[in-house]
Amino acid sequence: MLLHGMLHAETGAEAWLRYAPLGETEAAKYSSLPASVVVLGDSLLLHSAQQETIRGARGMLGRTLREATDQVREESIVLGSIAALNTAAPVLKHPPELRGDGFWLTTGNVNGFTCLIIAGATDRGVLYGVFALLSRIARGESAVQLDDLEQPYAPVRWVDDWDNLNGRIERGYAGRSIFFDGGKVRDDLTRAGDYARLLASIGINGCAVNNVNADPKVLADDFLPQLARIADAFRPWGVQMAISVDLSTPKVIGGLDTFDPLDPRVRDWWLKKVEDIYKLIPDFGGIVVKADSEGRSGPSTYGRTPADAANMIARALKPHGGLVFYRAFVYNHHLDWLNPKNDRAKAAYDNFHPLDGQFDDNVIIQIKYGPIDFQVREPVQPLFAGLRNTNEAIELQITQEYTGQQRHLCFLAPMWKEVLDFDLQVENPPRRHGDTEKIGPSGHRIIGSSAQLLTSRSPDHPGSPDRPVLASWGGHPITRSPDALLTPVKDLVAGKVFHRPTGGFVGVANVGLDANWLGHPLAMANLYAFGRLAWNPNLSARAVADEWTQLTFGRDPLVLRTISSMLLSSWHLYESYTGPLGIGTLTDITGSHYGPGVESSERNGWGQWHRADHQGVGMDRTQATGTGYTAQYPEAVARVYENLATTPDDLLLFFHHVPYTYMLRAGKTVIQQIYDSHYEGAQGAQQLVVQWESLKNHIDDERYEAVLARLEYQAGHAIVWRDAVCNWFLRISGIPDAKGRVGHYPNRIEAEAMQLQGYSVIDVAPPETASEGKAVECSATAQNCAAVFHFQEKAGWYDVDVQYFDQNSGASKFRILVDNQVVDEWSAGDALPSAKINGDTSTRREIRGLALRPGDEIRIEGFPDRGAHAALDYMELHPASGYVQATAGNPGSHGHR
Amino acid sequence: MLLHGMLHAETGAEAWLRYAPLGETEAAKYSSLPASVVVLGDSLLLHSAQQETIRGARGMLGRTLREATDQVREESIVLGSIAALNTAAPVLKHPPELRGDGFWLTTGNVNGFTCLIIAGATDRGVLYGVFALLSRIARGESAVQLDDLEQPYAPVRWVDDWDNLNGRIERGYAGRSIFFDGGKVRDDLTRAGDYARLLASIGINGCAVNNVNADPKVLADDFLPQLARIADAFRPWGVQMAISVDLSTPKVIGGLDTFDPLDPRVRDWWLKKVEDIYKLIPDFGGIVVKADSEGRSGPSTYGRTPADAANMIARALKPHGGLVFYRAFVYNHHLDWLNPKNDRAKAAYDNFHPLDGQFDDNVIIQIKYGPIDFQVREPVQPLFAGLRNTNEAIELQITQEYTGQQRHLCFLAPMWKEVLDFDLQVENPPRRHGDTEKIGPSGHRIIGSSAQLLTSRSPDHPGSPDRPVLASWGGHPITRSPDALLTPVKDLVAGKVFHRPTGGFVGVANVGLDANWLGHPLAMANLYAFGRLAWNPNLSARAVADEWTQLTFGRDPLVLRTISSMLLSSWHLYESYTGPLGIGTLTDITGSHYGPGVESSERNGWGQWHRADHQGVGMDRTQATGTGYTAQYPEAVARVYENLATTPDDLLLFFHHVPYTYMLRAGKTVIQQIYDSHYEGAQGAQQLVVQWESLKNHIDDERYEAVLARLEYQAGHAIVWRDAVCNWFLRISGIPDAKGRVGHYPNRIEAEAMQLQGYSVIDVAPPETASEGKAVECSATAQNCAAVFHFQEKAGWYDVDVQYFDQNSGASKFRILVDNQVVDEWSAGDALPSAKINGDTSTRREIRGLALRPGDEIRIEGFPDRGAHAALDYMELHPASGYVQATAGNPGSHGHR
Repeated sequence: MLLHGMLHAETGAEAWLRYAPLGETEAAKYSSLPASVVVLGDSLLLHSAQQETIRGARGMLGRTLREATDQVREESIVLGSIAALNTAAPVLKHPPELRGDGFWLTTGNVNGFTCLIIAGATDRGVLYGVFALLSRIARGESAVQLDDLEQPYAPVRWVDDWDNLNGRIERGYAGRSIFFDGGKVRDDLTRAGDYARLLASIGINGCAVNNVNADPKVLADDFLPQLARIADAFRPWGVQMAISVDLSTPKVIGGLDTFDPLDPRVRDWWLKKVEDIYKLIPDFGGIVVKADSEGRSGPSTYGRTPADAANMIARALKPHGGLVFYRAFVYNHHLDWLNPKNDRAKAAYDNFHPLDGQFDDNVIIQIKYGPIDFQVREPVQPLFAGLRNTNEAIELQITQEYTGQQRHLCFLAPMWKEVLDFDLQVENPPRRHGDTEKIGPSGHRIIGSSAQLLTSRSPDHPGSPDRPVLASWGGHPITRSPDALLTPVKDLVAGKVFHRPTGGFVGVANVGLDANWLGHPLAMANLYAFGRLAWNPNLSARAVADEWTQLTFGRDPLVLRTISSMLLSSWHLYESYTGPLGIGTLTDITGSHYGPGVESSERNGWGQWHRADHQGVGMDRTQATGTGYTAQYPEAVARVYENLATTPDDLLLFFHHVPYTYMLRAGKTVIQQIYDSHYEGAQGAQQLVVQWESLKNHIDDERYEAVLARLEYQAGHAIVWRDAVCNWFLRISGIPDAKGRVGHYPNRIEAEAMQLQGYSVIDVAPPETASEGKAVECSATAQNCAAVFHFQEKAGWYDVDVQYFDQNSGASKFRILVDNQVVDEWSAGDALPSAKINGDTSTRREIRGLALRPGDEIRIEGFPDRGAHAALDYMELHPASGYVQATAGNPGSHGHR
Repeated sequence: MLLHGMLHAETGAEAWLRYAPLGETEAAKYSSLPASVVVLGDSLLLHSAQQETIRGARGMLGRTLREATDQVREESIVLGSIAALNTAAPVLKHPPELRGDGFWLTTGNVNGFTCLIIAGATDRGVLYGVFALLSRIARGESAVQLDDLEQPYAPVRWVDDWDNLNGRIERGYAGRSIFFDGGKVRDDLTRAGDYARLLASIGINGCAVNNVNADPKVLADDFLPQLARIADAFRPWGVQMAISVDLSTPKVIGGLDTFDPLDPRVRDWWLKKVEDIYKLIPDFGGIVVKADSEGRSGPSTYGRTPADAANMIARALKPHGGLVFYRAFVYNHHLDWLNPKNDRAKAAYDNFHPLDGQFDDNVIIQIKYGPIDFQVREPVQPLFAGLRNTNEAIELQITQEYTGQQRHLCFLAPMWKEVLDFDLQVENPPRRHGDTEKIGPSGHRIIGSSAQLLTSRSPDHPGSPDRPVLASWGGHPITRSPDALLTPVKDLVAGKVFHRPTGGFVGVANVGLDANWLGHPLAMANLYAFGRLAWNPNLSARAVADEWTQLTFGRDPLVLRTISSMLLSSWHLYESYTGPLGIGTLTDITGSHYGPGVESSERNGWGQWHRADHQGVGMDRTQATGTGYTAQYPEAVARVYENLATTPDDLLLFFHHVPYTYMLRAGKTVIQQIYDSHYEGAQGAQQLVVQWESLKNHIDDERYEAVLARLEYQAGHAIVWRDAVCNWFLRISGIPDAKGRVGHYPNRIEAEAMQLQGYSVIDVAPPETASEGKAVECSATAQNCAAVFHFQEKAGWYDVDVQYFDQNSGASKFRILVDNQVVDEWSAGDALPSAKINGDTSTRREIRGLALRPGDEIRIEGFPDRGAHAALDYMELHPASGYVQATAGNPGSHGHR
């Protein structure tokens, strides 16, 4: 194995662990870093910690530190557990708070030499400390005179990956599985090891590797040794492997005729299976269960409760230290939409609140952040406050299932922060014990990021209210007055409010084989943010964005300012052109979850209704007149949402049905806000391209180009969203846009209005996803088709946009001719998530700088390919700026200047 | 075919025709460029001209110009020959001087519209005018109110490519042939077409596609149709295809029993063959002949002269307009080195001067610039002045056969300029006619580059004398006083002095399939410079370097300043560490022509002797005491060289044998200058790396990294050269370096002095190419070997250089361990031009920032591969700067700071 090369292309594979060379001036700041790295003791994790230190220093500082073991013979970086350090340097007193995965960076005397010490309660803590030190160096922070203690906020900091054994990933948008292929674990697990290293660097300590919609075969006898190979790849990085299971497995492949959790044969089957697993994987992390939901088997088959099922598996795991993650995402997807009291949002609370206290201590209820399903905006799930005697974890989604699928930029940390900081105002929480301890002994310095929090903070993005800040020391709140007893979500899930033995954070990651892990180079900010917030949810979204940007793209101030600001505005932007006012999903909800499909959620059993009709919009979830969902919240929160006047605008339509003319606090009607928000959002998406273009030559070309391509696509697709939603609401409400934009496209020429040669006009479904509801398609058997029109406007320079459909069933080709001159051609070979002609596939091609003259024949030729029909929606012409509009015409008036 | 993509990696394939987008501000300068490009008439060349205009404008300005033919209906860019223009716009008066491949860029009224007109005497001139306009735009020069006439200096501006039919290229350093593979013309000739476009863009109008050491099969009946396909690829760009032939072809494959040029059967064979060629290739350019040289057949076999042979072929070509290029590189390579009067330098003059006047008018004698063979420094070939009634062309070498083979940076324009500007002071040249005409009518503007020449000029590089400037108008000298009658080489080869019908410039290019054409991304500056100087040899090397840098890397002032300055210093740098004082080749002359091999030229029949012995060095070529070579020059020049005192230092040893203690004008002895020059040169090569590193983030990463890797290699190989030459002269002269450097390497540990495990000590040949003449090699059958030593210096940070041998017979691997810690490893898989352990393959690996402690075991492990023996020369340790030298030692003295 060669040491990592000096030069490599910036594919994004290195993510935030690039260890790019510092400039000479920057490197000089670390010139006194000890030359030796001594590891106290011997373990896989300590070896990783030592090698990572060497790798980081070599990359950033261009020098190779000396490896040493146990003996400190010169000034050194010393890596070791507290226990080992107590032996090597008994005089050093470690902070008593250091425990779990926490670490301590300090300077002290070992064996007579001044050393930089990285200590952990465990070897994993030591590894985390190494990554923290290297991150400091990469970001230009001081590495001398350290005395910093960091403690994770909660013991559980996990990711789930929804990989199927065949290699596909459910809701994965970056290629195939890094774990599985063709029903087996991959031979080459290099990427799995690389992934574990990335996870470790942000403090993530567990990973469930297969889809929660689990294939029973994952527990087959011949599969376990394969799983053990993944665990082997994870182990050097302290990431515990876990799996998702199907509860019916004992029956489906286990030879039993039942999977009733109370049946002793079933219990024994799980006992035996878990024992087999631990023989192969001694550090196996646990089991994730999705049951009785979306067609999955579950205990309800036998009239048993989730507690019965969870505890059965928990008891098998208990002797080995394993955990059960039982997902609260249990709901009926055959809900009767005619009954106005029915409400999917109530399901988790209704199902699990009654079971509070019945779950074993090694069971964690894994709860999505909102009551629906990873929407761009939801209120916080009330169940977080509804379990006082049960462990919880919050489930966040790193993979952008409903937030643009990594084709749109959507940095989720601001949303997660709003959720985690949300105070559920639990009634009568128990008195905290140990609050004073958390202030920390004065001898140790408060870590940088928290210290910053104490002094300054800017809002994460323009749209977010500036909430009160909870500063922290070592990850624990310190500014909280003992009387205030806030009960934010982060404290509930971390088990701090009800003194639970465990709990924490789970993120659904779904990385893939794409070199850059998540498809969009900027999407990795979400994985980074998840880990950082799971470690310390008191970090601000801006702090996380800044850290990630510096580590990923370097420290050019323009780059930092631009990317961080793009990240921080992106969630609000995506919300504003896809679903403002808490309206919930307007996407194709039974299919791709990607493009617009406003009505797809209505009148079906899946329960994600927005109830828009000709008079109004929104779902009444009040106790007074609606589904009664608000009653699930603690009294103080319920009061806010029950009342139309106190419900915040951004959740208005989630809680209330209002007429389109309802006047918002902002001083405009709901319908006008729907229009304005979509136009502003689409405009903002164009602006992202401009912001990014300012970074040309400030970052590497490879990532520059990759991001630019995605942003340009996003800018076009934001217009598809804008027009689909606005036109749908114009049609149903009958209320025109006060600014005259919706339904009026003066520069647009519909394909169906052109002269068609071979093309035939089709109705697009849903109609709002194509302009005027129609498109033209070319029969798959045709060689090619053409749509022609004659330009009759003023002579001049024009920018031309062609709206076409890029179906994933083939790669159509297009070309544009002006008076028989080919002026553009392209291949529609992207892999958008649909084979249909609709809002998933509607794509914009921008052609800049065409000189058009009255009478010009403009001809769009489409060449279908396999199942792709070279379909067209419309063409738009805009006068181009920045050109002298030299014109043709009467020679007499122009000829003699 | 898709139009060129918007985004592409910077592989170098686009060379200087990148048409990279201008920034918005820059593009605004061209906002009034007409939107339409009208071509008058119809031809392949005009079509190329029109499409190139559109391509360039689209790339740089982001707009698509309108194609039109014949009719001007609005303000337009109008492309056409003078003839066509006279019809379309009779009122426009073109400059009478416009002829041949010249062009005229002007503004004028056509059909009542103000137009930008690009006119040529021929369609090829129109194409050249288009490239000139696009180059102006790419370099930010004005494109309005133009009235510029450019006329090429000479009709012949050709390249030769020495491609073998099997696909290998003789003296090619950038991959395999773009024309041939496996004895056939390639199916895919895309690159051949791209090459022709590059050539056309710099005014090159002919290309001979096969090796001058020609395979007779090139004239086989079934090969001609294949050649026609290459000509087809060239034709749209006005590049005439030519071939090299073997004179014995009629006998070898033609069925005759002779190839005597005076035999009528042979004459008829050529007649018929040439007719066959023109049937397939109506614009065939001609035939290149290398004969009676280096083992090639020739007319001497039958006692005939070169004139007999050349005229025979010329008469076959004459009716079709073809040319014969008869190479003057004819010499005896079995010269008796014991005879001090023998001198290869005299061969060309001796062979061809007597034949002056005997060659037909369509024969050109193709003459290398110097009397030897493309050395880094030679005097000008006297034959240029020795042919008064014969056409000539100068042969320059773009491929860097003796100047670093594109692994070393060596920009040759400064050398070519010295050659071309060299005044041979021909006796009694005929009075020029038409000198006044060349001043040009006052109505037309002098072209930009020439205008600049008039006002300012800095020396091309520090080492070159600042010669009198010949400014020009339209490529013709204008400051020359009619009385002065300078006869510089450029005027001789262009036929201006003796009023020859044709003549000019031939460059040996040898581009290959490597994406960037010549291997080293910066080597393309040589191809560019050749074309530009062939078009206008009055351009300064700096002007050419600036143009190329701007076109190739953009207009960042730091980039322009840095690259241009690196280019301009590089020839002198290469000369100074490989062969100063005109000593001639010190390379492995019978083999690779690459690494050092000081004695390889001595005592053999090839005649490139430097005659170094224990007392002195240099070859006496005077009339008084030497070979009499100086007598070949016109009197005034001969006088300068004959006299030791007037011979310039940089050619001293070419003309004179002097003792090592001879005192140079610079005030130091010859031997000390040899030492100093090599040390300064090697130092300068290190400096190139530093200069380049300042461009990080100012140019694209891809080319940045590619160039950096070559420069780092060069810096190491310059040390190999330095040490080889200095040590050889130290040994032979016995005179120590006054600065104590040569032979003293205090930080060096010889591999043969280490503890060897499996490695065995070998003598390297020639001995000066390894330190102390020895190396260690690992038997090919061994798994691996090791060389070990114990570090005993002061503890601290060190940079370590390992000198190893990268044989091209396999890819050895190496790794370095310090006290069993792997601190570096690499693969020796470069394709250097030798399978031997010598100066061709000696390579430096720099390992920066190692912390070493007294007693450390340093272990170099080598893993042989096939015929590569993981051979080692030495290791060098240098204290590293920029680190705090934290040390180990007595804890009492360091422990408590």
